[in-house]
Order: sequence, then structure tokens, then C-alpha cells
Amino acid sequence: MSEIKDITSRDKDFAAWYTDVVKKAGLVDYSSVKGSMIICPYGYAIWENMQKILDEKFKETGHENVQMPMFIPESLLNIEKEHVKGFAPEVAWVTQGGSECLEERLCVRPTSEVLFCDYYKKIIKSYRDLPKLYNQWCTIVRWEKTTRPFLRSREILWQEGHTMHATEEEAIAETLRMLHIYEDFQRNDLAIPVIVGKKTEKEKFAGAVASYSLEAMMYDGVALQNGTSHYFGDGFAASFGIQFLDKDNTLKTPYQTSWGVTTRMIGALIMVHGDDRGLVLPPNIAPTKVMIIPIGDHDKVRTVTDKITSELNTKGISYQIDDRDKTPGFKFAEAEIKGYPVRIEIGARDLESDEITVVRRDTLEKIKYPVSEVVDHLPELFENIQKNMYDKALQRRDSMIYEANTWDEFTNIAKYKPGFIKANWCGDETCENKIKDEFSMKSRCLIEDEEIHTNCVVCGKKAKYRLYFGRQY
Amino acid sequence: MSEIKDITSRDKDFAAWYTDVVKKAGLVDYSSVKGSMIICPYGYAIWENMQKILDEKFKETGHENVQMPMFIPESLLNIEKEHVKGFAPEVAWVTQGGSECLEERLCVRPTSEVLFCDYYKKIIKSYRDLPKLYNQWCTIVRWEKTTRPFLRSREILWQEGHTMHATEEEAIAETLRMLHIYEDFQRNDLAIPVIVGKKTEKEKFAGAVASYSLEAMMYDGVALQNGTSHYFGDGFAASFGIQFLDKDNTLKTPYQTSWGVTTRMIGALIMVHGDDRGLVLPPNIAPTKVMIIPIGDHDKVRTVTDKITSELNTKGISYQIDDRDKTPGFKFAEAEIKGYPVRIEIGARDLESDEITVVRRDTLEKIKYPVSEVVDHLPELFENIQKNMYDKALQRRDSMIYEANTWDEFTNIAKYKPGFIKANWCGDETCENKIKDEFSMKSRCLIEDEEIHTNCVVCGKKAKYRLYFGRQY
Repeated sequence: MSEIKDITSRDKDFAAWYTDVVKKAGLVDYSSVKGSMIICPYGYAIWENMQKILDEKFKETGHENVQMPMFIPESLLNIEKEHVKGFAPEVAWVTQGGSECLEERLCVRPTSEVLFCDYYKKIIKSYRDLPKLYNQWCTIVRWEKTTRPFLRSREILWQEGHTMHATEEEAIAETLRMLHIYEDFQRNDLAIPVIVGKKTEKEKFAGAVASYSLEAMMYDGVALQNGTSHYFGDGFAASFGIQFLDKDNTLKTPYQTSWGVTTRMIGALIMVHGDDRGLVLPPNIAPTKVMIIPIGDHDKVRTVTDKITSELNTKGISYQIDDRDKTPGFKFAEAEIKGYPVRIEIGARDLESDEITVVRRDTLEKIKYPVSEVVDHLPELFENIQKNMYDKALQRRDSMIYEANTWDEFTNIAKYKPGFIKANWCGDETCENKIKDEFSMKSRCLIEDEEIHTNCVVCGKKAKYRLYFGRQY
Repeated sequence: MSEIKDITSRDKDFAAWYTDVVKKAGLVDYSSVKGSMIICPYGYAIWENMQKILDEKFKETGHENVQMPMFIPESLLNIEKEHVKGFAPEVAWVTQGGSECLEERLCVRPTSEVLFCDYYKKIIKSYRDLPKLYNQWCTIVRWEKTTRPFLRSREILWQEGHTMHATEEEAIAETLRMLHIYEDFQRNDLAIPVIVGKKTEKEKFAGAVASYSLEAMMYDGVALQNGTSHYFGDGFAASFGIQFLDKDNTLKTPYQTSWGVTTRMIGALIMVHGDDRGLVLPPNIAPTKVMIIPIGDHDKVRTVTDKITSELNTKGISYQIDDRDKTPGFKFAEAEIKGYPVRIEIGARDLESDEITVVRRDTLEKIKYPVSEVVDHLPELFENIQKNMYDKALQRRDSMIYEANTWDEFTNIAKYKPGFIKANWCGDETCENKIKDEFSMKSRCLIEDEEIHTNCVVCGKKAKYRLYFGRQY
């Protein structure tokens, strides 16, 4: 199998392995447009499944989809000072429309807080107009210098929720509610364990009071920030002059949140679950749960293939049949590259004893089932695969989380052991920066449920916080 | 009802009526970004329903969704000469990324033919790679000078299919297949009768061999081009140097199509079906099929409301309950503005005789049903509404299609009767232009199923074609 031979071993060169997998599994392709990628049908189908599950959760919790403009006039971007500082250096500017030069340049939205605020200012007048729970699915642009498929790209497909609330409590509850919807989705559907927590002041979103993130650990021990939920307080709302008449007949400024996840989650799927044979997709998110590979040109094989597909249709299990003119070996290898949760091999020899071989992608285990039972076994098998993938990822991640109480301990781990380090911190940005400068490790998020016994791992002064540190994509 | 009073009569000022309806029904709102609109939750929910139905049809016919870059480098746009001539004057140009000026300016895609061609050149090598049946849902930008919600906007939400085929026959068949998928969708789901046909050379898409369009007539007799399907021959493919090794071992150039529909279809829904009370939505596309309005604060009303909603849930019929602290009259009027196909009034007085009032939005007819039967009647009622809306639209349209055999006849109709004119044409662009210049009427499309008896309606020379003419949005 030339394709498999061409996949770099992930333990040898993880970056090359990643590029091989995204390309050979048919997830993305490169375009002639620098910094922009093409999302191929298989990659896009994964994104559609993510959208479907999340969109349902958003709607169940009362959110409505809207579509805002994709351009932001410079003067609008400039209204919130912290925000513009954070984003202006990395936006694309439209300066010409048709043959005319624009009087004011427009940036292609890097995120849409200011567009939503501009709209909310217009439509929020009374407590009766609150909460506003809006979301949009769209593409944003950030002018990145170096790009990698799904992880860092000039164009990003994402969703961004933007909500406004009458009270601080309600807005904070919304921030955490959406954080936990993401967490459940990533755990249950993507089979990716995530650490959720508050970002430090230095790492929070430009303009936010508090940013919460979902931190996943990739196979190589490097962190991927896999979604964020921000509480804005009334900062943006005040800058934009948004006010509502409350029940007590006084004018108040509403409280705001925003939250988003992107196609980056596809990168996480690859880097958490993939192996040297290619992609491994959890059944809950796989566009095709079963790849059927009929072996040989026998009537019996055809009859059984028809029987199996008709049962899969009845049960609503997604499948494809690989009946191309290729060897079974080629097809098995390709099914592995594509990461279909299960492949079913239907061959004349097995059928002599009325059996069919099912191969799990996660363990590569081969299981023989009687023809009449195979489809009945699948739902349970999918559950097992889903659970096994999560457990395996959790185990690997936990085995790569270390604890450092002194600078020496921190240095030793940071130098030689990939993964996350738990450590105490005084809260001073100088200490946070030292870790970043020496080891390229950023604070991931605060740990709020563990007691602080020791002092700051950097300066030795009294610690105020406990943190995860890690290198990041 | 202040909202209703504020809707201009459609017979008095159709343009003002349209603006009132899109705004008061909560479909769109204006933004501070010139030329870009905000699609509000209700408008976006209609678009999501359109997407859902069409996307399923695309997938059933073997198409796959992808996502291409949103930027096109100028050199790439320049490759196909006709195409660039058609689009370059109306694109938005990105000239700065972050703090640097770009070496080559990038346009925000006005359509993606060249991006798909650039990609197809890379992935099409053999007849085995064909056909390629790709589609994408995205936003495009055209730098329009004057804009109107849904009809003409700088940003347009749409889908664009781009396919490549080994033979001319297959590509032509695809062009027509997609045209007819659009036609069925508009007839059956939007309840909009459409005339489908080929555009003249003058009116075809920049770079196409043949363009087919769906021409709908609005209430005011003005045409709306409500979707197009293009056959490109091998023009783009040759310009881009796309070649494949065919079965006969020779290198050939593939044949191409593209096809698209946009949120403009929402504009058509409004202008075909709406009335002086607001929007009227066909049940097949309405985000909320039933608005329930409980009247008064009685136990019985609450019990029956619960019973009805539980039955609606079981049957999977979408509904909302308007239990706000407003008068029934206000709620009825708002339900009419929003165009819900059916409203159910649950009031204590009706319940005394165990009845419920159902009001059809299309006819405003009030029907009383026994409580136990009301939900059972709904599916048939929806079918009737859907059919009635189509029939009514068809009747109005047909009553506004005229036939002109001489220039005098044409002039008389064009001056005094809004609608379409069927006429014969010699095929000379001078004659087509004369109609455009004198009456602002463009050729809509060729009529291929009617015989040509008379001469060109403009010059009197021998006619080659029969055409629809009409003013357009």
C-alpha cells in the first residue's frame, strides 16, 4: 500500500505525520491562495456533523441563528480599545470596491463582537428585549503568517455565539453553560477529554473580563485550545452605549458573552485519535460509520452485501460500499487511512461458515459474527469504540500531566517530558512570561478545584493560583 | 395594530410595501455597514429550511460539499477572459493583510469558478476522476451600488455547484438536471411558478456557453431571476489547462457546469405571496407552521393548549405559543405579519362547544374544528394551503403574460401593462437592446416549445427565436 508507506510514523515526526494524514485521508488540500486551505468533501462532512450536533444543542438552549455582515468599517472596530489592539494587527483590509477606492477601509471580520454590539444597540431598549441569544455560522479571517491545515489558517470556519443579558449573574451563567455544552460535545461525541478553565489575564480574549477555554492534549503532549467562552461584563456594551430600561424604570447597561468553536476541532480529532495507519474517527462524528468491502465476485457475496446494506438502511447506520476494481488489501488500507469506525469484510470463504468479519478501526481487532447477527451487534460495538477511544485518550493525557513544585522540577519536566505541567503561581505576569520565554510554554488555564499548598514555581513567593502550563498549537 | 397600520399597501407603493414587510416580519435589518444587511433569526430560519431541502437533493444526486478559499488572487481571476470582464468591475479588493501591503491584491470571491478550476486542475488526471460533483454553501461579495434586502446586496448567501464531466452530453445533462431540481423546489416547496429557459447571448453568465435561468414573476409583474444553471463547455477548463487521460488513452479537456441559488429566493417568497397584512409563507418552507394563541387565563384553555402541543410534538409539526402579555388582536396581527401558515386560537368561549378556531393565513378563512380533531386536520390543511398558494400565484402570473406580434402591440403592452411579454425575435442584439433602452425590459429567456409564426417584433425581419421579455429586480 503506497499510501500507508507514505504516512510518516507519528513517533518519528509528528508534524509530518499530521500533514500526511490530513492530506491522504482527503480532509484538506492546499490551494493557490496563500494561507487558505480547501476543505475536501470528507473533511467538510465531518464539519457538517459537528455543526449538526452543536446547532441542535444551541437551539435547544434557546439560541437563534443570524447572519451579520462580513465587513467591519475601521471606525466600528476602533470603538472598543482593548479589542482593536488585539485584532487590528491581524486583519485583512478591503480598500477598493469595484473601481473606486473606499473612503473608509473595511476589515474582513476576524470575530464579530463589534458587529453584534452595533446591532444590539439598535434593538435592545427594554428588559423585555433581553436576553438576546444569537449565534452565527460563518467564515472569519485572521492574517496569520504561518499556517497549518485546521490549526492555523487565514480563513477559519466557525460558529460564534453573542449574547446579551440583563444581569451579570445571567451572563456568567451563560458563559459557563456554553462552555459545558462544548465540553460535553467534545467528550461524548469527539471522544476528546478536555480540561476546562479560566484563562489568565495575559491570555484572555481582547476585551473580555474572563475567558474560559477547553484545553485538549494532542498525542505529542502539545495543547490545543479547542474552543472558548468569554464573559465580557458590560465593557463592550458601555463602549457602544447600549442601554435598556429595566423593570425598576432605570437605564442599565447589559452584560455580554461570546463563545466559539472552529474547524480546529477536526485537527484535534486527528491528533488525539490518529495512528500510523491514518485517521481514527469516533462513531458519533464519523460521516461514514461502516465501510463494506465485498471480496471477490461471487453471487453469495453480492446477496449478503445486499442483505447487510438493507439492514443498515433500516437502522439508519451510515455506510459506503467499496466495490472498486482494486485489491482487498488496498481497500483495507484505505479504509484505515480514512478512519471509518468499522469495516465489514464480506468474503466467500467466511460465508462458507455463514460468517462475516468486522474490523474495529480503533483497536484493529477482527471479530467474526454470524451473517444474521452482524448489524444487530453494531450499535453496541459503536458504543464500545466511542468509549474505548475516550478512555485511551484520557489515559494517555493523564499519563502526560506532571506536577512541579519548584523551578528545578519545572525545568526538568519542561525540558524532557512533553505534556502539561501543573504548578502554583503568584499571579505576576513576569513569572508567567519567564515560563513562556524559557520553555515556550503558555499558561493553559487556572485549576480552581485543587488547593494551593506550595509557593509560586517561578519566584517562590506566595502562590495565588494553580495553573496548567503547556506548549500549544 | 400599529404594525399593520405601518405596512404600506402593496397596490399603492410596492417598493415601500416590500421594505415594510421584510423589516416588520423580522426578516432583515439594516447594519452600519453600507450595502450589507443583517439576516435576523426569522429570515435566517427560512434560509436554513431552504438549505436543508436543497442540500438533501444535492446529496441524493451525488454531490459533495466542499469549502474553497474566499479570496481570489487577481492573477487567478484574470485567467478566463470573458469571466474577468464580467466580474472585475464589481468585486471588493483586499490590498492589506495585517500591517503589510499585499504584493498581489485579492478579491473577495464574487463566484468561485476560477477557484474550482484551479483545484480541478490539480485533482483531475484520469477519466476515473470524473465526474467531480462539488457544491459549496458560502457568502459571496459583489460591489453593488444600490442595494435592497435579499434582492441586491453586497454580500450574498448562496450555494454554488461546480461540476466537471468527461463528455459534453453529461455536462449538459447535469446543467439541466440541476435546473430542474431548482424548478421542482420552487414550485413544490416555495409555491412559486417559474419559467425556465435559456438566456440570450447578451444575458448569459460571463464565460458560459449557455445559461439557463428560473424566472419568477412578482406580484407587481416584475421578473426576478431566481436561480441559474450554466453550461461552460470546455472554455474554463481549456483556459486553466485541465486535462484528463480518457479510456482511449488520449488527453481530453473536461466539460463543466455551475449552478446557484441565493437568499434572493426569500425576496421572491415575499413578493409572490405577501399581502397587505404581511408575509404569507408556504407550509413547506415556514420555520413555524402553527402559531398557537391561547385567549384568556382559563384552566380549560391551558389544558387544551397542552393537549394540542403534545399532539403537534407527536406529529412533528413545528409550532410556537404566543403567551405574551398582549391582546389577542395584537397577537393575531403579528401572526399575520409573520406569515405563519396557520394560527390556532384557543379561547374559553369556543371551548364551551368543544371547538377551536383555525385561521389560514393564505385565505384568512376561519375554520372551527372539534378539539379532538384539530391536529389530525392539519396535514391536509397544509397541503391545501400549499396548493392554493401555488395556484393563486400561477393564475396571477399567467394573467400578466401577454403576447405581442408587432412593435405597436409591444409598445402598448410595455407601456401600460406590467408583466411579461412573449414575442418573436430575429436574434440580433440591436433589437434586444432597443427593447431594453425603450422600456427597461430585458429578455428573460428563450421559449423553446412554441412555434414561431411571425417576424421579429422589433425589426420585422424573419424571427429565429421566441422570447419572454420583462422588467427585472
